[in-house]
Amino acid sequence: MNEKFLEFVPYSSVINPSFWSKVVQIKLDVDKLHECYRPIWGFFTNVDSNTYRTPLLEIDSTSFNLTCPEAVGSLYIKGHFVNKNTIESFKECDKAHILHNEGLNIWKDIISGAALDNPSLLNKFFILAFAELKKYHFYYWCLYPCISKLKLNLTSITNLKDCGSFNEQEVLNRLLEDYLKLDNNQKQFFLIKRSDLKVQTLNSCFSIKTKENILINEDDYFFCFSDPCMTDTYAGWPLRNYILFLLYYCPKLAGKSVNVISFRIHRQESQTLCDNSIIFTVRISNDIGPLEDFVNEKDSWIGWERNEKGNFGPKFSNMRGSLDPVGLTQSSAELNLKLMKWNLVPNLDLERNHSTKCLLFGAGTLGCAVSRSLMSWGVKSITLIDGGKVSFSNPVRQCLYTYEDSLKGIPKSVAAVKNLKEIYPLVDAHAFSLFVPMPGHPVGESLLKQTLETVKEVEKLVKEADVIFLLTDSRESRWLPTVLGSYYGKIVINAALGFDSYLVMRHGVRQFPGPDTIPVEENHGNGVKRISGENLGCYFCNDVTAPGDSLHNRTLDQQCTITRPGVSMIAGALAVELAISVLQHKDGGRAAAYYKTENVEVFSSDIPDESLLGIVPHSIRGFLSTFSQVLPATQRYKQCIACSDVILNEYKTRGFEFLMDIFNSSKLLEKITGIEEIYKNIPEYQSISSDEEFTD
Amino acid sequence: MNEKFLEFVPYSSVINPSFWSKVVQIKLDVDKLHECYRPIWGFFTNVDSNTYRTPLLEIDSTSFNLTCPEAVGSLYIKGHFVNKNTIESFKECDKAHILHNEGLNIWKDIISGAALDNPSLLNKFFILAFAELKKYHFYYWCLYPCISKLKLNLTSITNLKDCGSFNEQEVLNRLLEDYLKLDNNQKQFFLIKRSDLKVQTLNSCFSIKTKENILINEDDYFFCFSDPCMTDTYAGWPLRNYILFLLYYCPKLAGKSVNVISFRIHRQESQTLCDNSIIFTVRISNDIGPLEDFVNEKDSWIGWERNEKGNFGPKFSNMRGSLDPVGLTQSSAELNLKLMKWNLVPNLDLERNHSTKCLLFGAGTLGCAVSRSLMSWGVKSITLIDGGKVSFSNPVRQCLYTYEDSLKGIPKSVAAVKNLKEIYPLVDAHAFSLFVPMPGHPVGESLLKQTLETVKEVEKLVKEADVIFLLTDSRESRWLPTVLGSYYGKIVINAALGFDSYLVMRHGVRQFPGPDTIPVEENHGNGVKRISGENLGCYFCNDVTAPGDSLHNRTLDQQCTITRPGVSMIAGALAVELAISVLQHKDGGRAAAYYKTENVEVFSSDIPDESLLGIVPHSIRGFLSTFSQVLPATQRYKQCIACSDVILNEYKTRGFEFLMDIFNSSKLLEKITGIEEIYKNIPEYQSISSDEEFTD
Ligand SMILES: [Zn+2]
Ligand SMILES: [Zn+2]
Repeated sequence: MNEKFLEFVPYSSVINPSFWSKVVQIKLDVDKLHECYRPIWGFFTNVDSNTYRTPLLEIDSTSFNLTCPEAVGSLYIKGHFVNKNTIESFKECDKAHILHNEGLNIWKDIISGAALDNPSLLNKFFILAFAELKKYHFYYWCLYPCISKLKLNLTSITNLKDCGSFNEQEVLNRLLEDYLKLDNNQKQFFLIKRSDLKVQTLNSCFSIKTKENILINEDDYFFCFSDPCMTDTYAGWPLRNYILFLLYYCPKLAGKSVNVISFRIHRQESQTLCDNSIIFTVRISNDIGPLEDFVNEKDSWIGWERNEKGNFGPKFSNMRGSLDPVGLTQSSAELNLKLMKWNLVPNLDLERNHSTKCLLFGAGTLGCAVSRSLMSWGVKSITLIDGGKVSFSNPVRQCLYTYEDSLKGIPKSVAAVKNLKEIYPLVDAHAFSLFVPMPGHPVGESLLKQTLETVKEVEKLVKEADVIFLLTDSRESRWLPTVLGSYYGKIVINAALGFDSYLVMRHGVRQFPGPDTIPVEENHGNGVKRISGENLGCYFCNDVTAPGDSLHNRTLDQQCTITRPGVSMIAGALAVELAISVLQHKDGGRAAAYYKTENVEVFSSDIPDESLLGIVPHSIRGFLSTFSQVLPATQRYKQCIACSDVILNEYKTRGFEFLMDIFNSSKLLEKITGIEEIYKNIPEYQSISSDEEFTD
Repeated sequence: MNEKFLEFVPYSSVINPSFWSKVVQIKLDVDKLHECYRPIWGFFTNVDSNTYRTPLLEIDSTSFNLTCPEAVGSLYIKGHFVNKNTIESFKECDKAHILHNEGLNIWKDIISGAALDNPSLLNKFFILAFAELKKYHFYYWCLYPCISKLKLNLTSITNLKDCGSFNEQEVLNRLLEDYLKLDNNQKQFFLIKRSDLKVQTLNSCFSIKTKENILINEDDYFFCFSDPCMTDTYAGWPLRNYILFLLYYCPKLAGKSVNVISFRIHRQESQTLCDNSIIFTVRISNDIGPLEDFVNEKDSWIGWERNEKGNFGPKFSNMRGSLDPVGLTQSSAELNLKLMKWNLVPNLDLERNHSTKCLLFGAGTLGCAVSRSLMSWGVKSITLIDGGKVSFSNPVRQCLYTYEDSLKGIPKSVAAVKNLKEIYPLVDAHAFSLFVPMPGHPVGESLLKQTLETVKEVEKLVKEADVIFLLTDSRESRWLPTVLGSYYGKIVINAALGFDSYLVMRHGVRQFPGPDTIPVEENHGNGVKRISGENLGCYFCNDVTAPGDSLHNRTLDQQCTITRPGVSMIAGALAVELAISVLQHKDGGRAAAYYKTENVEVFSSDIPDESLLGIVPHSIRGFLSTFSQVLPATQRYKQCIACSDVILNEYKTRGFEFLMDIFNSSKLLEKITGIEEIYKNIPEYQSISSDEEFTD
């Protein structure tokens, strides 16, 4: 007689893009650089939909759920997922070793009795993967461990409904009813007692203790399993591990002929039926020797999936197109920062960056560079104030604008926000196209109402902001934001450009009203001096003249950005790096500045309380002609025209009225602060910053 | 009797956008910061087209022609154009003074006899303007100086054809024929002798010498002028200066009644006619006293044009929309650079920047920043080589890409070129999406042909380039361009990033083959040392290991740009500033580097032959954690694996074959250069640059 063996159809994996999306998220948020061995759910179905004839194991976004997901018709099995860090370690994994281990895990669940109580443990899978996160390329290889070399002599295949015991519809209906009452785990492998045709769970028939002298005979039961395979002639993959289980719990079945029911469901109109189930009558081979030895043999387990080409090898999935692109872009954008945290700066508080609200005065060369750099640092809330429009000369220097914007003459702030969103759709950017009132630029009667509204708007924006950047092109335009930033105790970062030099600084941050202590310079040792964050000066502290109408009478050159192009890129980058260093400093804006009086660098080692990212100087002055930088620090000036108590008090008590007085006459600032007198006594005083004003 | 005076209709100015376009061009290319008093042409017509009834003085692109333009029907007059540098100086100009001066210029032309020979000098104009170049806003005010208070009693108005003398068509035809034979200057004012009805020029009747005892009577002549005015009742503006002229050359006309012909032309079907000309019979007032005194009186001249509101004041023209936008964008983009040259660096060779061909290896964070900065410096030819595609994580850090580009996964080089053109349509940018072969990355048989083609392409691009930027993300990808740059003697600028540090350097430039002199470090004095440009090292000179397959087995972090965002912006900006400094140095790439051995800045004053823009260091190393920069310089290494003679000789003799050997085994480099031996003797040698390689 020509022997015929029952053949088994392996699972094919179907991985939903939503799974990969979760993988990316978990990799970035949880696993990071760890290669976690992470439990996941997979599911198959024994419902014959007449579409897929191949047994599918599906993986989707619910696969990472902690508890077993529920879905009608789906049977969940447990697996594990390992996401390797590199393609090399993915390739270099010992696949045979993994297979053997995973197989033995099934064996362990059998002999421990775990699979007796939870038969679904006989169905296992494993996914080895490498996710190339930046490209959304996924390499993966699925394993469904399964005992091999366990041969089943096929003697007959009978449709369930054609079998004498089951040929009444009523019996089949009751059988299905009982089956559906089983939970997910018991459904996968169960028994039907021949005597009463009732469904029984494995643990109601077998027991660890009785397995050697179990009383059941091969004909007492139909050995049932929910079969993912829908063909009439083959069985699904799970049957083999079931047979292994049966041989362990009822050794005398070896060499015997048994009836196995490949339990399948189908739906006809509104009815659910199980009459498409199949009975395989098979004789279990008895030449395998002791099971313990058998399962430990080198090649007794099989199960690595073949790829699309039919070879044993990984599958590849390019998810660029199918993952939600906006979600993709978010996780991609965050990847660099997360890698920075995982690898280099573990205490980096990325949430701090994400939640910081930045307000930028000026959307010119500096404003564009600063907002791009903020976005790179994960800052999401960026508000831009600028009254100008994109002109033809802007795009080549202002890195957020295009020729098209200049052609349309779009307001700069609006164009900047539009283009920030084109770079990163999830940025929370806002535009305010308005001119900030300035000292010495009188406000006529007709503009009074509009000026009041502008001031209110600016006050509101400053109050809401965490960090304020002063990036405008004139000294006087920095006055109002400096006063407001100082009054509300905000971090203020200032950048100003010269032809081939730049100044980037942070303003002191202190409480107002508060004790008006006299600033003291402290010796820190090693030739290093220290100024507390409260006592650091503002942009105007070094300057005893009131900001007049410096826009007036500017010659052609001064209207323009006559700067070496590198100046604004460097100053913009440094302004953001300084801001982030301050944000990541434990004292925030109140972090002390250290400096050396001699013209030498300050080394981190000189400074006890630097930021996570390094030192937080008061100011950075750079010179492209010598490619050099110095880090001067200065105290706040008690008679400063912008940050002194006398000015903040005037603003507090007289508000808009005070501001209007200053807009109408900047000389008043000198009177209020008393520097008028000082000014008279310094005949040749030159504004330090006067030659650094022609930014754009 | 109710006295009636002849009234005069002033010119209205019509300025063609093409004129403003020329103004911009001349301002940028010629006048620069000078406020030139520049002669221009204006034109009017005495052809009645039945469309414009108002006398128009037109200005267009031909107005700046040196010789009088010609156009049928148009009468050209001379004027002057002054373009002020600021709106303030425009406003502050003394308009009364200008008027008086321009009026007296007419008087001078009368008394000198210039207007006798060239009557068109009686028609003058002046344009005072301020061009806000960046916005294409033009403020201007036209003046048509004209003697005032010269009253003409109007006694009759007669159509020319109704006048007894002219009522035969034949006469009119001959008259017109004679008129058309006059040149542009004589046409504007002339005479018709009553006796023979023939046209006569002014200098055929009057003379400076005879003016006191001139014999002609008021009835001897018809006093004709080409009249821009087309109404039946008013005369055009030119008549008054004509009367002044007549009073000077024939004083006895004062108080007399004269016939003035407002000479006009019209076209009827194919015929040109002058029968719409008008004879004003007027009596010239005789109460003005001596002419010399009269013209010098404070208010004897008038002529500033009224603006659209009917007030005396400047007109405003917003030319954003009507000037050719691409031309606009070009002149706008160049404005900043021209201003830099005019104001600050007079010897700056902008043409050098414009004509320099730059080749960029790498279009990642550095490549994007560098190409933007090059464009800002006026570099027009930018070629990018990059084999990658825009990924989702790129746009927030790589300043040429958008979310849209990442969605489409466009090759980086292609996207970069596309976006450079969106910024500045006139850029001459080219993309090569290819991977540069690298040492230690073996080339299989199947890729041999493609690799040969790639190498040929890269060789060609290097040969054509003037400056080569190495901006890739691995050490080995810099090898081939370093060898080629060295072989062809190109300026090579290299930038590499660490987490919070950067290295920007230039490679030495020397002739190959040339004398293989031993590099010498020279003492320059003041603790400063000097290395000649020929003896400066390349990126590999400090490094004794061959560039292996550093991409292999990179962990997740190393595949990505884990750099503080500021690092690439700063390094990109510095790379370009260094390149431009070198280009503007008299010795170009062979400029010597000066450095101090102690860790102190090099001051420009220490260096005798710095660039126009400052010093040209060998390298710039910056550290964001301390916001500091140092400028080390190193000599070239005789056994360098990239720039040494032995390597260049191998390349020269064996070409592609040699390169292939190196691609297949980088260790060969150590053997060829003999550093294999050295390497063995330095047990713990660490590549200086190995931690600075993970750029993108
Ligand atoms: Zn202050
Ligand atoms: Zn070298």
